Amino acid sequence: MPDILVLSRTEVEQLLNMDDTIRTMEEVFAASSRREADSIGVLHIDASKFGGFWSVKPGYLVHKGYVGVKLGCGYPANSTKGIPTTLAAVLLSDATNGLPLAVLDGVYITGVRTGATGGVAAKYLARKESSVVGVVGTGMQGRMQVLALKNLFKLKEVRAYDIDAGRLSAYVGEMEQRMGVPVKSAISPEVAVRGADIVITVTPSKTPYVMDDWIRDGTHVNAFGADAHGKQELDKATYKRAKLVTDNVEVALEKELFERKDIYGELGELVTGAKRGRENGKERTIFDSTGLGIQDVAAASLAFEKAKKQGVGKWVKFI
Amino acid sequence: MPDILVLSRTEVEQLLNMDDTIRTMEEVFAASSRREADSIGVLHIDASKFGGFWSVKPGYLVHKGYVGVKLGCGYPANSTKGIPTTLAAVLLSDATNGLPLAVLDGVYITGVRTGATGGVAAKYLARKESSVVGVVGTGMQGRMQVLALKNLFKLKEVRAYDIDAGRLSAYVGEMEQRMGVPVKSAISPEVAVRGADIVITVTPSKTPYVMDDWIRDGTHVNAFGADAHGKQELDKATYKRAKLVTDNVEVALEKELFERKDIYGELGELVTGAKRGRENGKERTIFDSTGLGIQDVAAASLAFEKAKKQGVGKWVKFI
Repeated sequence: MPDILVLSRTEVEQLLNMDDTIRTMEEVFAASSRREADSIGVLHIDASKFGGFWSVKPGYLVHKGYVGVKLGCGYPANSTKGIPTTLAAVLLSDATNGLPLAVLDGVYITGVRTGATGGVAAKYLARKESSVVGVVGTGMQGRMQVLALKNLFKLKEVRAYDIDAGRLSAYVGEMEQRMGVPVKSAISPEVAVRGADIVITVTPSKTPYVMDDWIRDGTHVNAFGADAHGKQELDKATYKRAKLVTDNVEVALEKELFERKDIYGELGELVTGAKRGRENGKERTIFDSTGLGIQDVAAASLAFEKAKKQGVGKWVKFI
Repeated sequence: MPDILVLSRTEVEQLLNMDDTIRTMEEVFAASSRREADSIGVLHIDASKFGGFWSVKPGYLVHKGYVGVKLGCGYPANSTKGIPTTLAAVLLSDATNGLPLAVLDGVYITGVRTGATGGVAAKYLARKESSVVGVVGTGMQGRMQVLALKNLFKLKEVRAYDIDAGRLSAYVGEMEQRMGVPVKSAISPEVAVRGADIVITVTPSKTPYVMDDWIRDGTHVNAFGADAHGKQELDKATYKRAKLVTDNVEVALEKELFERKDIYGELGELVTGAKRGRENGKERTIFDSTGLGIQDVAAASLAFEKAKKQGVGKWVKFI
């Protein structure tokens, strides 16, 4: 029987570049639209007794022949213990015969697949000439989302806001280097958002902080923070006025931020052409994302295939 | 950050003996009854396009401080390819801080935890002086179930039946050695079942083959084959007449073999004493089991703790 491949966080980071991950996300959303990729469902584990919350996200990729599951969690109090607050691992198996293939650290996978998916959404929904990006929330996704856009648009400026001034200033310094364009720190969400062509919201806010009248015609919003019931970043009016696209309609509706009739379609439908993305320079568009198991399994399988080719990772006897 | 421990099937086999596993299953079912262990839910993946079916079973053990998930599958056609037809892997994490701890082959875990759970059920439900065991179905569980009983009862005889004569004769030879008592091959399910003190059914049958009038007063039945909707081994009348105990009421009802009012209680309630097990020498008892994530995570955590003490397994850099 074949061994199992263990891929550490550093190895996954080395294997998954943004370009290939964007392509892989585009493929998996298209497959999902053709019913050849299925996230099955999500199970949540409330470990609040220990200060943690978990999600179990499987994915079945018919088009690639993989099955997998990500076990991910958040432990906010870890920051005081020198342990990351977000942790995850992905198990990857062969859908053609059931053999376990790999176990991968899941934190970078989550980061890069989410960023890449924002890139895919912007590719179909933002104006081609978009050049100014407004970012609210400068954590991991505040980075990944703009790095994905860098590969797809000729950006001129990034305007970032964060409630934590220290985190914001670290972001500005780091991202100006990585993006190669001016990254400015905004004194309020409004300053970051007003006049931006693409707005990125990635905060854990439970109250809307991006007001509808800040968003001008032709703007695209990637809303990645409201990943669970109770979280809300955008004004409800914004959802009503915009062309709203989700990663998965059923999962999006569970958050109760908007109604089914407000949703224009799913990302996979834009990729396959079943529905048109942006149709003119005036419309406002929103991509609202929760995060699906198929994204994790697709990114994990990309890392696995590259690792085999490049001889990265450690093979261990398993069966 | 700590490394992750990889435990192969052979290592798990070496680590998990039946005695300790029985004790661990008793503990986890008691914890479940106190709401300190939770199987959350099960997700099924239909990969029939590739000839496979999968289950995703998480488990959260408050009493031990672990979270985990088993990704398991069945690929019947693997038998022609030299690959096992059943495959599984378990991811184990620390519930106190979210850190991934181990990845373990899940096939022996599934086998031994299921056998051990049958042992726990028989401990509370079978007559103490039970000495004759009737087994229908002589695969992995036909072995594990009687090995568990060996640790708990003074057995005199095992009578086994299987639809496959070759498999049955291999079983008789092997198990007579391992059990140290006569193991006889029965020419029909009826011959295996009639007169047995403990009956074990572990087949994938979709039609009942154990008739109600074969089961005499005082018999205990461990029914482990009907693990999914559509499978049935026992006469419906048997469920009505017996004291019926399940591993989990909600999961058991999904199989639609019996109604809620037919169920006496859950295994954990017998272990904690919330409900009495066998109350006299006359009653017929059934333990109907589907298999829960808490069993997998409990067995995996037992293997993990033993592996750390004994220096078994391979530690690999992960985060």
